[in-house]
Amino acid sequence: MVAIDGERLVSSLHEIRDFGRFGNGVVRRSLSQVDLDSREWLVRQLEDAGLEAGIDGIGTVFGRSQRPGRAILLGSHTDTEPRGGWLDGTLGVMYGLEIARSFAEDASLSDCAIDVASWIDEEGRFFLMLGSQSFVGALAPDMVEAAVDTDGVRLSDALADAGLAERPWVKLEVGRYLGYLEAHIEQGPYLEEWGKRIGVVTGIVGLRDYMVTVTGEANHAGTTPMAYRKDAGAVLISFAEATNALLRLKAGPATVWNIGWINFEPGSPATIPGRAQLILQLRDPEESKLDELATAVDALARERSGPVTIEFASQPDHGSAAKMDPSLVEHLAAAAEETAPENWVRMPSAAGHDAQVIAPHLPTAMLFVPSIGGISHDLREDTDESDIVLGCQTLASAAERVFRDALSARPSKSANAPAGTPNGANGR
Amino acid sequence: MVAIDGERLVSSLHEIRDFGRFGNGVVRRSLSQVDLDSREWLVRQLEDAGLEAGIDGIGTVFGRSQRPGRAILLGSHTDTEPRGGWLDGTLGVMYGLEIARSFAEDASLSDCAIDVASWIDEEGRFFLMLGSQSFVGALAPDMVEAAVDTDGVRLSDALADAGLAERPWVKLEVGRYLGYLEAHIEQGPYLEEWGKRIGVVTGIVGLRDYMVTVTGEANHAGTTPMAYRKDAGAVLISFAEATNALLRLKAGPATVWNIGWINFEPGSPATIPGRAQLILQLRDPEESKLDELATAVDALARERSGPVTIEFASQPDHGSAAKMDPSLVEHLAAAAEETAPENWVRMPSAAGHDAQVIAPHLPTAMLFVPSIGGISHDLREDTDESDIVLGCQTLASAAERVFRDALSARPSKSANAPAGTPNGANGR
Repeated sequence: MVAIDGERLVSSLHEIRDFGRFGNGVVRRSLSQVDLDSREWLVRQLEDAGLEAGIDGIGTVFGRSQRPGRAILLGSHTDTEPRGGWLDGTLGVMYGLEIARSFAEDASLSDCAIDVASWIDEEGRFFLMLGSQSFVGALAPDMVEAAVDTDGVRLSDALADAGLAERPWVKLEVGRYLGYLEAHIEQGPYLEEWGKRIGVVTGIVGLRDYMVTVTGEANHAGTTPMAYRKDAGAVLISFAEATNALLRLKAGPATVWNIGWINFEPGSPATIPGRAQLILQLRDPEESKLDELATAVDALARERSGPVTIEFASQPDHGSAAKMDPSLVEHLAAAAEETAPENWVRMPSAAGHDAQVIAPHLPTAMLFVPSIGGISHDLREDTDESDIVLGCQTLASAAERVFRDALSARPSKSANAPAGTPNGANGR
Repeated sequence: MVAIDGERLVSSLHEIRDFGRFGNGVVRRSLSQVDLDSREWLVRQLEDAGLEAGIDGIGTVFGRSQRPGRAILLGSHTDTEPRGGWLDGTLGVMYGLEIARSFAEDASLSDCAIDVASWIDEEGRFFLMLGSQSFVGALAPDMVEAAVDTDGVRLSDALADAGLAERPWVKLEVGRYLGYLEAHIEQGPYLEEWGKRIGVVTGIVGLRDYMVTVTGEANHAGTTPMAYRKDAGAVLISFAEATNALLRLKAGPATVWNIGWINFEPGSPATIPGRAQLILQLRDPEESKLDELATAVDALARERSGPVTIEFASQPDHGSAAKMDPSLVEHLAAAAEETAPENWVRMPSAAGHDAQVIAPHLPTAMLFVPSIGGISHDLREDTDESDIVLGCQTLASAAERVFRDALSARPSKSANAPAGTPNGANGR
């Protein structure tokens, strides 16, 4: 079994942590200067590991193995939330770097090509999962032109300022890959709760945002009798309470939802709200469950229209639920049983990841390590160092298993294939 | 009976409408340049009516009769909401001007002193009912120092820029007044609904604002299981819905309430709200009813604390419920029965007015004219011209009745008082 160097891994994680360090966490927004500096650093590390590496025209760091034959792609993202944790996606990128190094050092793996990516802007400063969208061909130039961050900075200007605007975008090379593997912190409390050290992800939840808008009539809150009011706020509150009750009743075992934003207009204590809005976010591993819940909430909205109107509108930027590749999941499971016997578990991912963008295009799987206290997207985010190392070793073993399985599969088709073929050499 | 000049009244209303005219409405925020210009204009009008007039050190226009003996104070406010109607408080100030003119022209009323005020900032750009608060001595210099508008403009700077900072504040002269009368548009739909043209106000509702704050814990809305959440938003919604239900049950016949402002933090669709707030506004003519309702809502908040905390906090700037003076109310009622037989009604005021600040210090009463469609604090606000004129005639007649009553009361104490005394001359 390939052996990763745990000390080297942790040391690299601490090196990149210094790009944007903020307390225990990191502030490294995509395409900020500190992010660009960290990308240059990452390119050098990947080159030192023998990869042909660079930053592409959208900001993704891509390291390509120069070995012949099919490859495994490892990746995640090194950009952070406005105040993010030091691990998050960076963990998965550093796993890729460490595994590329380990494979380079192991003579028995000399034919196994490891590519490594740090997809730009997974956190969506400009555009959610920008780099992976670009990689699979889902990004059009006019989407780049339209993308602006909350401070009004245009993505196209940020790319031009970084000197990237003229570079090509790295694209998925059809036929090159045996699969894509992404490691990430869990970002939830389950592994810790269950006392497990590795999560083998079976699927990624779908995510949908709905904007609910109630339109009534603003009026004086003293002189307008209760019976005369078209109070958009009171109707929205009543709708929100009923929605929470309905979802508690109809939720599947893996459904979660959130009302994280609400607004009354004009927003004066002495004025009856003329317009009231909220955003409802639904997540479930099954698209059919999301359809069912959305239909039920929409029906609730329709019931409530009367002196006011309610609109229930689907928002863009939805993430589709993604199933992980069964064969890759089994390789991850076998590796986990080897590195952490009985200390691993199969589980869905309740958060969105670049893996869900890539899954429709490549066999894809994910591995989780525990988040202490379930905390993420916060400066306090952390994972036990022994779990960090264990996760990387498990991912490396899984990658090795995928290669050996692919190589052994060919001779098995013809038991009489001559020994010593380029692939057969590593089929043992 | 004293006769007002309806054409002159309407003409004056249209003249002042041009200061800040905006569509059908008016934009004349207190101490803005257009407001200051309108105050200079008003001072000249009051001087032409024979009053000693000026703008005081807080911005109030005050016109003082130079006649001897006791006076009646008429007033309201000429400042507007950010987008206000053309009548609102301006109606009451122009009634004061027209009545001062009419009394000046009526030789039989030559001993009746009419003072007129346009109280600054009733709408609370800097400080709710600033001018009337100053007049009754409720305003301290440090309150002026602290007052800032929503754009960050300091009241003290606005007064200095207007050249008013060094002027004294007009103060209530003890013993001078028989009473304070304020006319205003109703700002509600009742008069129109009942088919009445004059409202004789019996009391002004008390108004209380409460800030409700739920503190939970912000977390990732995908990876945090429903059972683990400390969702401040969901608890606030549930509290708000329960509050609406409770108030529907416990409200008195004249209770109204409003939730006009709500906010979730951090306000991201993908983050469970860590903090959620709303402002509940309660109004009722009875302070005891307000106490009862506030106690019940507070108890509701206490019940709901658990994984989150709820705080129910009274806000400053409350308006106390005010009873109108019974004797002045009867004079208004008698005048209304004379000018609009069976077309008037006694009613409470559901909005706050300068009259409620003055009521504890002087016998006070109010008169309403109908608001078309119940609309106010809006550019569309309007009142039928015949109702505008009728309201002024009614207020003038009521003022005359108050004087005659006061004058006749003296001789009645001593039936043998010599004829021809300064007061007795007008006692007929």
